[in-house]
Amino acid sequence: MCSVISRVGPVQRALAVTLRLKANTEGSRYAASESRRFCPGFSTRVDPLRDTRRSYCSRMALTDGLLFRQLFESESSTYTYLLADTETKDAILIDPVLETIDRDLKLVHELGLNLKVAVNTHCHADHITSTGLMKKRLVGLKSAISKFSGASADILLSEGDKISFGKHCLTVRETPGHTDGCVALVSGDQSMVFTGDALLIRGCGRTDFQQGCPEKLYNSVHQKIFTLPEQCLVYPAHDYLGQTVSSVGEERKFNPRLTKSLAEFVNIMNNLNLPKPKKIDVSVPANLVCGVHQV
Amino acid sequence: MCSVISRVGPVQRALAVTLRLKANTEGSRYAASESRRFCPGFSTRVDPLRDTRRSYCSRMALTDGLLFRQLFESESSTYTYLLADTETKDAILIDPVLETIDRDLKLVHELGLNLKVAVNTHCHADHITSTGLMKKRLVGLKSAISKFSGASADILLSEGDKISFGKHCLTVRETPGHTDGCVALVSGDQSMVFTGDALLIRGCGRTDFQQGCPEKLYNSVHQKIFTLPEQCLVYPAHDYLGQTVSSVGEERKFNPRLTKSLAEFVNIMNNLNLPKPKKIDVSVPANLVCGVHQV
Repeated sequence: MCSVISRVGPVQRALAVTLRLKANTEGSRYAASESRRFCPGFSTRVDPLRDTRRSYCSRMALTDGLLFRQLFESESSTYTYLLADTETKDAILIDPVLETIDRDLKLVHELGLNLKVAVNTHCHADHITSTGLMKKRLVGLKSAISKFSGASADILLSEGDKISFGKHCLTVRETPGHTDGCVALVSGDQSMVFTGDALLIRGCGRTDFQQGCPEKLYNSVHQKIFTLPEQCLVYPAHDYLGQTVSSVGEERKFNPRLTKSLAEFVNIMNNLNLPKPKKIDVSVPANLVCGVHQV
Repeated sequence: MCSVISRVGPVQRALAVTLRLKANTEGSRYAASESRRFCPGFSTRVDPLRDTRRSYCSRMALTDGLLFRQLFESESSTYTYLLADTETKDAILIDPVLETIDRDLKLVHELGLNLKVAVNTHCHADHITSTGLMKKRLVGLKSAISKFSGASADILLSEGDKISFGKHCLTVRETPGHTDGCVALVSGDQSMVFTGDALLIRGCGRTDFQQGCPEKLYNSVHQKIFTLPEQCLVYPAHDYLGQTVSSVGEERKFNPRLTKSLAEFVNIMNNLNLPKPKKIDVSVPANLVCGVHQV
């Protein structure tokens, strides 16, 4: 097991799974207790669940010494996120894309970072991850993905796992629905959540391939993401309209799909009639083997 | 004069102009004294010029109660920035683009903001600003641009002017070189600078049309932007590689053009041989009248 990942025990895992199946109000309590239990970075001085000020970026005050970069790949409209501890220089990369590997590695090099883990929030269908190639270029780099993704990687993630970099960590929340192996990654102070394709800004990932299931997705978002503090910034894996960030409070209020009832949501998702992603036939096989297949 | 803008006096203006002509080391001292003199949001508790920690996003701690959104327009690769006071809801918009006016106004509406001022960092050649049309849709909205831009607007900005929104403000620094009427906008705590086209991430605006002058641009960047704290986040008007933000420290170190000598910089800029911007013949006339010409 990689030293940057710490596991939760089987009892806690069972509790999490049980609570995931309960209603939204239950999920809210679950999130509150969960955050106190697993996140050492969570401050008892400020309770984000009770802090109703809409302070947005100022919430990063709770994450002192964090370097954060949002990067965009325009062909697949994918966001890649670089996070680092400014003291130790330990860094992680979320959802890196093959086409932008040189840009991303150049930035890592310029900033003098030690890239420890490259995480995929799920097995992408629309682009090939750069994780595999990046591992060949950076000695010691580990890849990570959900154990339910069906993909191979150095680290297979489960609910409650923490990915550490320096004094910071991201906690894994399983959010199946777009695929079975989707995860959201929550910062220690719950000021940021990386939602992958589960929750997009005023949207969500499609559910018509790769084990997609609208009921699962609805429950995942309501129980694992909408239970975060309303000021928590939402950083998705994609945006197609030039939006870079939202917040849990905003998506709870304005997401045109996820503010609907479960039945209405399922109906919407089952009638999107979207074309098949252009790259699905090369992306999924490549991403199942960490992005190195046929690259 | 719009109440959200406060002016500096003629003596201070003369001082600023004099100092602008001096060498870079002078500019540094100028920036330090300038920030203390004009910015009420500047904290005496933390001196960003002496704070050498690379804390990046955590610097937003100094700007409590700030809502901040970065938005992208893909045709011209333009960034639009929305900033608001989370208490009063007073907001400003920087460099809005005609094509994304509906997206931007929808967000302003959803967040319940009172948009007071729409600022252009300069008279753009590559896209039409939405400022003019936005003024027609939002009663009371004021447009702002440099008095050296040659463009009409409700507010003509000069060195040291402050654009206030709630308890926050942005201070104007004139940065001629890409055009005569370019300005950078610096947040009260100097944690963020909106650089327009003067300084881009690892690049800069071209200097081959619209009063472009490489010598002026070099001096503007070195004296008005590189004199900011190294942790100050750089938000440019454009990026063509999917980068969203940099820092003054990074650009001082890694900008491939502006780390060169003045002579080398001038030589680079005079030999770029770039094609004419596609929209220049419609954008500039439209932007000179606040974006409403032929719209």
